[in-house]
Amino acid sequence: MSSPKNEFIARVREVVGPRYVDTRTEELFGYSYDASFGCTKGTPVLPAVIVKPANKEEISKLMQLATAYRIPVVPRGAGSNNSGGTLPVDGCMVLETNRLNRILELDKRNLTVRVQPGVITGQLHRVVEAEGLFYPPDPASLDFCTIGGNLAECAGGPRGVKYGVTRDYVLQLEAVLADGTVIRTGTQTIKGVTGYDLTRLLVGSEGTLAIFTEALLRLIPLPQAHHTILAVYDDIRAAADSVGAIIAGGIVPACLEFMDRVLIKCVEEYAHIGLPTEAEAVLLLDLDGHPAAIADEALAVEKICRGLSVRDLHSAADEEQRQQLWAARRAAFPAIVRLRPNVLTEDVVVPRDKFADMVMQAQGIGEKYQLLVGMAGHAGDGNLHVEILTDENDEVEMARVQQAVLEILQTAVELNGTIAGEHGVGRLKAPYLGLEIKKEVMATMQAIKQALDPLGLLNPGKFI
Amino acid sequence: MSSPKNEFIARVREVVGPRYVDTRTEELFGYSYDASFGCTKGTPVLPAVIVKPANKEEISKLMQLATAYRIPVVPRGAGSNNSGGTLPVDGCMVLETNRLNRILELDKRNLTVRVQPGVITGQLHRVVEAEGLFYPPDPASLDFCTIGGNLAECAGGPRGVKYGVTRDYVLQLEAVLADGTVIRTGTQTIKGVTGYDLTRLLVGSEGTLAIFTEALLRLIPLPQAHHTILAVYDDIRAAADSVGAIIAGGIVPACLEFMDRVLIKCVEEYAHIGLPTEAEAVLLLDLDGHPAAIADEALAVEKICRGLSVRDLHSAADEEQRQQLWAARRAAFPAIVRLRPNVLTEDVVVPRDKFADMVMQAQGIGEKYQLLVGMAGHAGDGNLHVEILTDENDEVEMARVQQAVLEILQTAVELNGTIAGEHGVGRLKAPYLGLEIKKEVMATMQAIKQALDPLGLLNPGKFI
Repeated sequence: MSSPKNEFIARVREVVGPRYVDTRTEELFGYSYDASFGCTKGTPVLPAVIVKPANKEEISKLMQLATAYRIPVVPRGAGSNNSGGTLPVDGCMVLETNRLNRILELDKRNLTVRVQPGVITGQLHRVVEAEGLFYPPDPASLDFCTIGGNLAECAGGPRGVKYGVTRDYVLQLEAVLADGTVIRTGTQTIKGVTGYDLTRLLVGSEGTLAIFTEALLRLIPLPQAHHTILAVYDDIRAAADSVGAIIAGGIVPACLEFMDRVLIKCVEEYAHIGLPTEAEAVLLLDLDGHPAAIADEALAVEKICRGLSVRDLHSAADEEQRQQLWAARRAAFPAIVRLRPNVLTEDVVVPRDKFADMVMQAQGIGEKYQLLVGMAGHAGDGNLHVEILTDENDEVEMARVQQAVLEILQTAVELNGTIAGEHGVGRLKAPYLGLEIKKEVMATMQAIKQALDPLGLLNPGKFI
Repeated sequence: MSSPKNEFIARVREVVGPRYVDTRTEELFGYSYDASFGCTKGTPVLPAVIVKPANKEEISKLMQLATAYRIPVVPRGAGSNNSGGTLPVDGCMVLETNRLNRILELDKRNLTVRVQPGVITGQLHRVVEAEGLFYPPDPASLDFCTIGGNLAECAGGPRGVKYGVTRDYVLQLEAVLADGTVIRTGTQTIKGVTGYDLTRLLVGSEGTLAIFTEALLRLIPLPQAHHTILAVYDDIRAAADSVGAIIAGGIVPACLEFMDRVLIKCVEEYAHIGLPTEAEAVLLLDLDGHPAAIADEALAVEKICRGLSVRDLHSAADEEQRQQLWAARRAAFPAIVRLRPNVLTEDVVVPRDKFADMVMQAQGIGEKYQLLVGMAGHAGDGNLHVEILTDENDEVEMARVQQAVLEILQTAVELNGTIAGEHGVGRLKAPYLGLEIKKEVMATMQAIKQALDPLGLLNPGKFI
């Protein structure tokens, strides 16, 4: 029987070929969730169809069809976001861009790389690093997340403190608008002021304005050398205070990471690398650059930390030890998820000098609501990830979790910070956006959304 | 007699006080032009009124009045832009934000500074550098241009090659929209993904979307040391080729500047510092950072330049010599303006590996149209300023100038570059925007303009 929906799907099949269209319930089910936790309890919401186009021409045609049939479209890469940014709405088309997975051109003379959205971030790292170049954004999911998703979420990572985030490395974008129009934004050059900065408007827009089909990314020379320091503290506030003191001392480490006692213990039990499980907190720093520069900086860091009652300082003796320490940091999430059925990761950022306050208050909120809370964070840029361990089937506890989340976000805003640093707003945090974004600013964003996607087809039900 | 215009001006006087409102013809005349050349020949276009508000509340009220009376508004700082971005339209209100001229807070722990739009860029440099901090954007006009203007134009300068441009240093903006709504965009932190990136949408919008009333700027630690090298070439292409080779060699100088023979000669006659007036071109490089790092880089740069037939290499022996060399570079514009009544400065950017092609072709275009052309540029980021010397009263020559401009811009676009790197589009380049920006991209920009300023009151007749 021919319904408009069936007719739409038939025409979608003509565009991409039947092999790349899926409507089987078991497949649709796999797209009813993403890496987020906290917004999918209950009956799963299924898309009407999963489509995997091969190129921008197909994506343009798909968006023309979606416009003609008024079908909502949810763009998707690896689905590894933590904020429900790729959750479907009932009857939508999920448009997965992972077949556009080529590195098109690595330009060593201009320090740029042209990529398609389906390229895996970690793969891009390996390719450019083999040529002595460096693409700094390094979200924790880099082994499976895609550049398209990184662009949509404005992904960050530990290296944000020195090197900034995804938006700082995008020169040009090619993208398909809601009506199927293909636009190319920006310039191939660092400088370029011809018109509005559509590039950065689209970066971080979480799939609500356009679907990425290509990006020209800026690279920098790979740092010559690294020096990794583990600083161990008996006092959580001293650790957090050291962060602000290091930066105020004119030292900007490539990474400056924080872990509290809960996470230290978890990671050590998981990875067995000799972390001090009785410590209250550790800082893990990476200094990079010229060997002489980082040697001077290491001395300065040690002096600052000793002035703030550090218990122990360990420098990685060689690259193997260095990799081991960083593997420990990366193990934080896989280690902690083993403790309880679910982990809710909060992603707040505060000005660096408020990092200690944020940590202390988040700890207090966890205690107040009798929750098991672990904290890790990109302390150098004030980005704290509060991991709340819970079980979604324990409704009584979940009510306390919700209350704790609200208070953590409120605290971040009171400390002049933000409720979402690098994991997006998506569906998970949309209800809280009003804590931070004033109504006139939201109205401005809505006016832009309305101007570019008047039918509201692109990724509905998310932050906008 | 009470016309709507007189009524509007009377109400403007009530908002800011009569002292800060001017309608005298001789004053209005001073606002009929800006630092641009090439769009104001003929009878001057005068604004109806010049208004100098004290704060955002007054600016908000002024925009409410402008909306009620449908009066176009031209925001203005120092008027030092080169692209006619602050030229008035007939009967408009010029809204000068220079009374908002305070540095509100320098935050050493968070590496930020909060400023009002009327702060002079050079003054900001001095204040933050006294604290060991660094605000890199350094437009040539830094002794008199304002931060508000830098935000509107996304100003750059020599340090763009290593440090980026204005957009890379803006964390938050406070701005007044066309209807008087005051919005605050962005976050105080490097990371922050709550909603669309309105901050970077407004940076570079040339006064067509909002009027800035405050900005939170990101700072970095001041580099420890500098090393300046002057490389002298007998062959203009060898000089230009050296630029790409240095960058491809993994060295990103803080500045990497180019001057051709015409400019070398002019500067030497003006400043008498011993530049090699018989050379075809010079490169002026500044390496900054840790002393050991820049010593290594200086050796590598010298080796690369020798491999490309450099004639001479001079390193500044001390800070005095270094300042002298940079004073020479800064003297390029004041030196060249003495040669002919008018100078038209083109501001194109090409990918670095096309810089030599751009230089050679611009030189050829100058010869073809029998024009005196000097070239200087921020070669490290591919930004070439072509200075066309002329006399606006010589109509025959001016016709050739117009043709040369068109060909220079076309060449930049053919070389995958942009027609406007850091001087804005404004009124001067609006007619050429179609060379670079495709109509669907322009339509996207127009949709945003329509959404945020539906009456088209803000800075009409410019690029949008």
